[in-house]
Amino acid sequence: MSRTLAQIAQYVNGQVVGDPDYLVHSVGTLTQAGPEQISFLANKKYRKFLHTTRAGAVIVTTGLGEDLSCNLIEVADPYVAYARIAAMLHPEPFKQPGIHPSAWVHPDAEIADNVSIGPQVSIEAGVKIGRDSVIAAGCVLEANVKVGQDCRIKPNVTLCHEVMIGDRVIIHPGVVIGADGFGIANDNGQWIKVPQVGSVRIGNDVEIGANTTIDRGAIDDTAIADGVKLDNQIQIAHNVIIGEHTVIAGCVGIAGSTRVGRHCAIGGGTGIAGHIEIADGVQLTGMSMVTKSITESGVFSSGIPAEPAKQWHKNVIRYRQMDKLTERVKQLENQLKD
Amino acid sequence: MSRTLAQIAQYVNGQVVGDPDYLVHSVGTLTQAGPEQISFLANKKYRKFLHTTRAGAVIVTTGLGEDLSCNLIEVADPYVAYARIAAMLHPEPFKQPGIHPSAWVHPDAEIADNVSIGPQVSIEAGVKIGRDSVIAAGCVLEANVKVGQDCRIKPNVTLCHEVMIGDRVIIHPGVVIGADGFGIANDNGQWIKVPQVGSVRIGNDVEIGANTTIDRGAIDDTAIADGVKLDNQIQIAHNVIIGEHTVIAGCVGIAGSTRVGRHCAIGGGTGIAGHIEIADGVQLTGMSMVTKSITESGVFSSGIPAEPAKQWHKNVIRYRQMDKLTERVKQLENQLKD
Amino acid sequence: MSRTLAQIAQYVNGQVVGDPDYLVHSVGTLTQAGPEQISFLANKKYRKFLHTTRAGAVIVTTGLGEDLSCNLIEVADPYVAYARIAAMLHPEPFKQPGIHPSAWVHPDAEIADNVSIGPQVSIEAGVKIGRDSVIAAGCVLEANVKVGQDCRIKPNVTLCHEVMIGDRVIIHPGVVIGADGFGIANDNGQWIKVPQVGSVRIGNDVEIGANTTIDRGAIDDTAIADGVKLDNQIQIAHNVIIGEHTVIAGCVGIAGSTRVGRHCAIGGGTGIAGHIEIADGVQLTGMSMVTKSITESGVFSSGIPAEPAKQWHKNVIRYRQMDKLTERVKQLENQLKD
Repeated sequence: MSRTLAQIAQYVNGQVVGDPDYLVHSVGTLTQAGPEQISFLANKKYRKFLHTTRAGAVIVTTGLGEDLSCNLIEVADPYVAYARIAAMLHPEPFKQPGIHPSAWVHPDAEIADNVSIGPQVSIEAGVKIGRDSVIAAGCVLEANVKVGQDCRIKPNVTLCHEVMIGDRVIIHPGVVIGADGFGIANDNGQWIKVPQVGSVRIGNDVEIGANTTIDRGAIDDTAIADGVKLDNQIQIAHNVIIGEHTVIAGCVGIAGSTRVGRHCAIGGGTGIAGHIEIADGVQLTGMSMVTKSITESGVFSSGIPAEPAKQWHKNVIRYRQMDKLTERVKQLENQLKD
Repeated sequence: MSRTLAQIAQYVNGQVVGDPDYLVHSVGTLTQAGPEQISFLANKKYRKFLHTTRAGAVIVTTGLGEDLSCNLIEVADPYVAYARIAAMLHPEPFKQPGIHPSAWVHPDAEIADNVSIGPQVSIEAGVKIGRDSVIAAGCVLEANVKVGQDCRIKPNVTLCHEVMIGDRVIIHPGVVIGADGFGIANDNGQWIKVPQVGSVRIGNDVEIGANTTIDRGAIDDTAIADGVKLDNQIQIAHNVIIGEHTVIAGCVGIAGSTRVGRHCAIGGGTGIAGHIEIADGVQLTGMSMVTKSITESGVFSSGIPAEPAKQWHKNVIRYRQMDKLTERVKQLENQLKD
Repeated sequence: MSRTLAQIAQYVNGQVVGDPDYLVHSVGTLTQAGPEQISFLANKKYRKFLHTTRAGAVIVTTGLGEDLSCNLIEVADPYVAYARIAAMLHPEPFKQPGIHPSAWVHPDAEIADNVSIGPQVSIEAGVKIGRDSVIAAGCVLEANVKVGQDCRIKPNVTLCHEVMIGDRVIIHPGVVIGADGFGIANDNGQWIKVPQVGSVRIGNDVEIGANTTIDRGAIDDTAIADGVKLDNQIQIAHNVIIGEHTVIAGCVGIAGSTRVGRHCAIGGGTGIAGHIEIADGVQLTGMSMVTKSITESGVFSSGIPAEPAKQWHKNVIRYRQMDKLTERVKQLENQLKD
């Protein structure tokens, strides 16, 4: 789908420096793009590549102040403009509306106009799917699931009974939403199941990465607010609440009943204990271990980065001796006092 | 499904304080429940809500000694009683027995009475399924899998060939049991596959959380004993053995050939090395790193909780200097001796 | 499938010590094997079992120097020989070539000879599958996916559009390859999606464990080189590149655009930050946290192993006081200087 730079600039409210009639058909990186592709510069680190790129055009920040031979599109925020241009040049593959003959849809399900239901799908009674949504191959929507408008449910996703999904939600393959939370009660040494009678509510404009799991609430619902973006293999336990526009990287685990604020950013591999609160605007660097509430915004971290194994081994031993070391320092202090 | 408080109290061996004919139809939390719901108090922290709750009745511990206006059901263990009452008031949705027309079941499979096989299921030759079990939509049971009686296999579960599942087992969506263990041998710099010829044995009354994986044994079987409860996204490697009534929270990884004892409780995100033993009754707090056998019961922990990033950075530097610091203390000690 | 020891020895280039006509039909461990089974000794730790094993034969290293009553097959590398013998005695169950009647295959897909496509599979337009490959039940292959020859795609795998898989690749159940990478741009406080227009290239002889996820590239491709072996529940982000013959244990997460070298070995639960490089031949022990590039081969580690909770608590407090302790040592040094 080729577009002129003039068309592209207009779409992102930018200005062409160069040939407005120049045609590009796809996006590329500064180092790999060819003359029919458009690239972008969002990170100063890659500025040097502007002089050697073969890209037909480059999206840059307004007033870059470089004298370049290639076409430019100047915008306020090149990465945001790039995201929009890439979506324009690389539209999603068209999905035929209708129900694939190999899908099974319960007659009591309500499927709106222009919905595409792929092969081998299973949709139970009481399900409602809003218009323009796509349910890809192999998905299972249990009884009474609600999916909003313009959603993309990718292959092999499981939405358990009663789960509610907002509009414009993207759910990647292998995701499980609404499985039972981990509720057990100890009955004289044996664990018995505590029924999980809540559900899961997913807001609008949420994206959920592959093989992520979000459990249904024990009594009240688990809730993911509007604009939240979740990466792959995240585990969200029952009754967790995630605030608007929070982003969470891969392999994070959040234990039950914890509330995460709005506009947080949680690094990959982080673990967050149950029954605590994370304030709005908190950033956690990767692999953090959070055991207590964080009451103010800011950047928080934990973990000691890898080092050569011999040195690691020595440091672990020293760590174990810190108590003794503190004691030795105290004795020295006492001796000097005398 | 409404019940009187008298009926409920009888079911859990409790006593009604208030109106035995009062009807409730579902469960709710102390803060959210309405007059047609029953709630419970298991954690003293929420005791204050007893005075403001709108719940029609509350399950409490016998001899609570509060003067309350609402109906009570007094029991020995309110949480265990709540679990039973919730199961009574919120029975699982009925699954039509029989084989869904879109399912594929090999003619050599043995399906007992009153089994429900959902849409898009695939069941290979030699599979045996015990009576009253439910195999939900999208599941794949490879050749010779055995599933016991009264099991709930949720959607999109994969049970690989020869895997054995006990009675009353619940397996949540996306679980994979019996994939090949990670067996590789280095043949002059290239890794070759070591066939995994063992299987997996799952005991009775086991529950397995969404997207958890349990690998088949290399030669002998991987084994999960009776009453074990596993949360989501747990990885259990080949030839691991988990003892009776052990509970494991989400995102735990257990490496090959490790034995975990009975009645253990393993916190979320914990990693346990291979070829070690964890004694009965061991508790591990979340994100623990276990590299050696633990030979006695007790609580074990590791990891340093998150702190503000600046402070974290400083502490990491100090950690790396501990060896030098110890040396400095030694020098001071020597100077003072002189 | 019984074989004589002579046949087996010839297959692995070994020598029979004992009866060359002795028949075995399967493999077993030294402690569990019976007289119709063959076992192996690869780890000195188990040498004592040689004297009590009931195995019909044992694969041992040449020149072991023990006087044993059982049959032996002497080879250069017993574990490599065992892997080959196990594959010979335990061939994969035969999969009927052809397309299962419950599968859906788009007429524009190209399926080579002797391919087996299982029940409930969905294969979209433009897919190409090389000869002798098996696509098991419940798999979804989106548009234009390429799968090479002699591959084993296990049940419920999702291969997203355009993904390329080499020859002799094994992909275990629940794997998702080619889901969108986690690309988001902040547009005045709201996160917008950055289209992920790259793909994923998987080399030859790769094995990928259950529920592992490998995201498609943002612009260029994510790439897994020949001979790489990945365990279960690994998360590989967009544009990661993994070099030849690297092995990665379960629950590892690798963030975007990181390059991992050749012949690396990465322990379970390790987290690797984005945009860094790991040199060839690096070994990382389990649960390492890698935040910076590692430029030379060697063994690297991090994390402090679990200890009794009381001691852990004390050490965490001491850790937090290290800065103060260092200050105290400095004061002592100054006092002594005066």
